[in-house]
Amino acid sequence: MTNKLLLESLQKLIEPSKMLTDTESLEAYGKDWTKIYTPNPMAIVFPKTTEEVQAIVQWANEHKVGLVPSGGRTGLSGAAVATNQEVVVSFDYMNKIIGFNEIDREVICQPGLITEQLQNFAEDNGLYYPVDFASVGSSQIGGNIATNAGGIKVIRYGMTRNWVVGLKVVTGKGDLLDLNKGLIKNATGYDFRNLFIGAEGTLGFIVEATIKLERKPNNLTALVLATPDFESIMSLLHAFQSKLDLTAFEFFSDRCLEKILDRGDIPAPLDDRYPFYALIEFEALTETIKDEALAIFENCMEQGWVVDGVISQSEQQLKNLWRLREDISETIAPFTPYKNDLSVTISKVPSFLADIDEVVKADYPDFDVLWYGHIGDGNLHLNILKPQNLAKEEFFAKCATVNKDVFEIVKKYNGSVSAEHGVGLVKRDYLEYSRSAVEIDYMRSVKAVFDPNNIMNPGKIFK
Amino acid sequence: MTNKLLLESLQKLIEPSKMLTDTESLEAYGKDWTKIYTPNPMAIVFPKTTEEVQAIVQWANEHKVGLVPSGGRTGLSGAAVATNQEVVVSFDYMNKIIGFNEIDREVICQPGLITEQLQNFAEDNGLYYPVDFASVGSSQIGGNIATNAGGIKVIRYGMTRNWVVGLKVVTGKGDLLDLNKGLIKNATGYDFRNLFIGAEGTLGFIVEATIKLERKPNNLTALVLATPDFESIMSLLHAFQSKLDLTAFEFFSDRCLEKILDRGDIPAPLDDRYPFYALIEFEALTETIKDEALAIFENCMEQGWVVDGVISQSEQQLKNLWRLREDISETIAPFTPYKNDLSVTISKVPSFLADIDEVVKADYPDFDVLWYGHIGDGNLHLNILKPQNLAKEEFFAKCATVNKDVFEIVKKYNGSVSAEHGVGLVKRDYLEYSRSAVEIDYMRSVKAVFDPNNIMNPGKIFK
Repeated sequence: MTNKLLLESLQKLIEPSKMLTDTESLEAYGKDWTKIYTPNPMAIVFPKTTEEVQAIVQWANEHKVGLVPSGGRTGLSGAAVATNQEVVVSFDYMNKIIGFNEIDREVICQPGLITEQLQNFAEDNGLYYPVDFASVGSSQIGGNIATNAGGIKVIRYGMTRNWVVGLKVVTGKGDLLDLNKGLIKNATGYDFRNLFIGAEGTLGFIVEATIKLERKPNNLTALVLATPDFESIMSLLHAFQSKLDLTAFEFFSDRCLEKILDRGDIPAPLDDRYPFYALIEFEALTETIKDEALAIFENCMEQGWVVDGVISQSEQQLKNLWRLREDISETIAPFTPYKNDLSVTISKVPSFLADIDEVVKADYPDFDVLWYGHIGDGNLHLNILKPQNLAKEEFFAKCATVNKDVFEIVKKYNGSVSAEHGVGLVKRDYLEYSRSAVEIDYMRSVKAVFDPNNIMNPGKIFK
Repeated sequence: MTNKLLLESLQKLIEPSKMLTDTESLEAYGKDWTKIYTPNPMAIVFPKTTEEVQAIVQWANEHKVGLVPSGGRTGLSGAAVATNQEVVVSFDYMNKIIGFNEIDREVICQPGLITEQLQNFAEDNGLYYPVDFASVGSSQIGGNIATNAGGIKVIRYGMTRNWVVGLKVVTGKGDLLDLNKGLIKNATGYDFRNLFIGAEGTLGFIVEATIKLERKPNNLTALVLATPDFESIMSLLHAFQSKLDLTAFEFFSDRCLEKILDRGDIPAPLDDRYPFYALIEFEALTETIKDEALAIFENCMEQGWVVDGVISQSEQQLKNLWRLREDISETIAPFTPYKNDLSVTISKVPSFLADIDEVVKADYPDFDVLWYGHIGDGNLHLNILKPQNLAKEEFFAKCATVNKDVFEIVKKYNGSVSAEHGVGLVKRDYLEYSRSAVEIDYMRSVKAVFDPNNIMNPGKIFK
C-alpha cells in the first residue's frame, strides 16, 4: 500500500483535524530533547480515546507500521524519536484528570496530563505528588511512567513506579489491560503494571493511570554544606540519614557552582568557595527536628567533614538554595555538554567517581568535567563541557570514545548506564554494560509476547 | 525412566544427605499452612549453592519433572504444596546473610534466611527491616519475595516489593539472572525483578536477594480507639492520615476482641465494649507529635467517631495493644475458620464489607463472621467460624458456595481475591474474578518465556 493510501486509512480512525503530516509538525513531534537524531515520521496522530488508540494499534498491526508514543518529548534518551517512517502517537489530547478520591488519595488521569498539573492538582487538594524534576512543566505523566522518571525526591519518595497504583495499557496486540485498579495490596499473579512501567512504550501504550498522592510535606528546610573533599559528602549522608528522614540529598561540584554564580541572578550561598557542596533537605516538622539537624551540622563541622554551611530560614531562601542545584542543567546547556546519567550503589560512589575522573583526565586533560546529582540514590550526572576551540562534531566523536571507557567502569562497579533517563536509542548499544546478553534475550522474548509484530516503539531499548 | 533411576540421577547433583524420600519428610515438606491438600512429592532436595539449584533445574528440564520451591511453608494459598510427584526444592540450607553495607543500608542474603533473623540483623546494626507479620519467626525471605508478603506496616513501608533492590534468580531454563544489583535507580529496560517478585516461583527460583533497610522507628506509640460503627473507622483514618505519618492503621470487630479476651492473658483495653476498634500507630518523634495525635483523638471524640480510647505510655503497653490485633489469627485457629484475604480501594471498604456481611447472613444466619485487617491498605481478612454442630466437611462445602458470592462482590468492586496471601492452588480457580482472561493468557505466555517446559511450580496461579 502506498503511504497515501495508508494515511487515508489511518485518518479514518480519528477525528479529521487529529492527523498531521506537514513538515513542521513531523519535525516537532518526531524528536525529544536529545536532538541528535533526524526526525522522520510518516504522520502524527492525536487520539482522544482509548478506543482510538486500540484502532491505531490494530491498523499498525495490519500494515506493519511502527508506532512511537509521544508525551512532552522532554526525554534525554531518544525513546520518543521517530527516525524511520513511524507514526507518532501523541497523547496531547488525552490530558485530563478524570477521577479523584480524597480517602484513597488517588487520582485517575490520562497519559497526556502534564506532570506539573498533577502536582498542582494534588496541592489544591491538600496533598502532594512527590515525583519532581526539572522538566515537570512540559513532561507528561504517561512519559514519566514509561521511563519510570526519578528526580530530586527519590531518596524519600522513590521513583514514579512507587506512585502508580493502576495502569490501563493497550498492548502491541491491541488488547486493553486494566492493571491493578488502584489497589494497595493485590497478590494475584504477575505484576504486569511494573513490567509496563519503564518499558518505554515497547510493550504497549499507557492510556490511563491511577496515581497515589501523599501527605504534603511541612516546613521543608534545606542546608547547603561545603565539604573539603568528596568523601566528606558520603560521611554527611550517613550522619544525616541515621537521624533524620531526608527529602533530598543532592550534591554538586564547585565548577557547577561557578557556572551558576556566573549567571549573576542567584546569590552565593557562602562567603568562600569549596570543592564540593551537599544540598540536604528535610521536613522541620517541629523545632526539635530542626535543632537535631543543626546538632548534626555542628558535629560534622567538628569532624572536619563540613567547612561552612547555611540553613534556609524562609521559603525564599529554600528556593534560592534549590536553584543552586536545579539550575545547573539549564545553565550549562549553552556549553554543549556531553551528558551521562550513571548510578552505582551509594557506598561505591567515591571510588567510581575517582576512576571516571582519572580516565577522562588522562585522555582529555583539557575537558571541563562537572559533576552533580542525586547522591543519596547513588545517581551521578557526569557532564563534560565542550572546549571552545573544539568543533562540535570532533567533541562528540571524542566523547563517544569516552563513553566506552566510562561504561567499562560502570560495568566493573555493577552500576547502571542509565540511572533515570532510560535507554531509548542513546543507550541501546551500551545496554550490555548493565544487563547481561541473556537478560536482553529474555527482554526480546517478553516483547514478542505483548507485541508480536514489533510495532510498538520498534528499535528502542534493544534492536 | 523409573522413579528409582530418576532419584539416583538427582542425588548425584547434591550432597548425599541432602535428598530425603522418607514418608515423614515427604509429608512435612510437601505442604504449607493450608493443610487442605494431600502432600505427594517424589523427593525433597536441599541445595546449598546456586550451582546446585541450576543443576536441579537442568535435571528437571531433561526429565520433565515439576519442581516446587519451599521456604518456611507458612503460606496460606497452597503455593508451596507438592501434590503431584514434584521434587520439592527446600532452601533451608541456603539461609545465610552474605553481605552488609551500612552506607548503602543493604543486606545481601540467601533465600532461606528466616524473616525474623533479617529483622534482628537490621536491629543489631541500628536499622530496621519493616516488613512484619505473624509468621516472621518461621517464614523465609525467599518465600516473602515470591509472594510479595505484606503485613502490618504496609501503610507506611509498602510490601516486600519495595525493599528488594537486587534479586538473583534461576529461571525455568536454568539461566542465572542478576537483576538490578542493589541499585536505587536503574532505567535499563524491563524490570524483571518486579516480575519475579510475587510470581510464586512459577518463573524461576530466587537464589539471592539484596534487601534495603530503613532507619529504625523511634518511640512507636499506639492508640486503640473504639468506634460506634464501621464508617467511623474510615473517618478516623482520614483524620489521622491527614496530619500524621502512620506506621499502622489496623481494625478489628468486637467479635474478634471477645475471642482475644476469652483467652484471659491480655488485659481489656477499655472498660466497655464497642462494635469496632482501630489500632493506630505512629512515631512519637517529639512531644509535639504526640500532642498532635491526642488533639486528633479529642477532635474525633467530639465528632462522635470515637467513643472511647487508650494510648500506649510504655513499650509494654504498646505490645499489649498490638496483641489485641496480632493474636486474632492464632486465637481463632481452633474454631476451624474459613479465611479470605480480600482488598478493595480504601474508600470502598464500608459498602464492600456491608455487601459481604449481607450475603453471608442471608444464606447462613448461624455463621459467626469475624472481620479484621489492614484497613489503611484496604485489606480485609474475612473469617467465618465453624458452627459447633456442623461437620467440618459440610462447613467447608457451604463455605465454597460462599466463596463464589464473595468473589462476585470482589469483582463488582474491582477488588482483589488475594490481597497478600497469593494465588497458589487455593485461589487459582477464582483468579478471573480479579484478573481478566486476556491478562491470564499473557501470564501463560510470559511463563512460557522463562519456563518453556512448565517445570517451575507447575499448576500454581493458573493451570
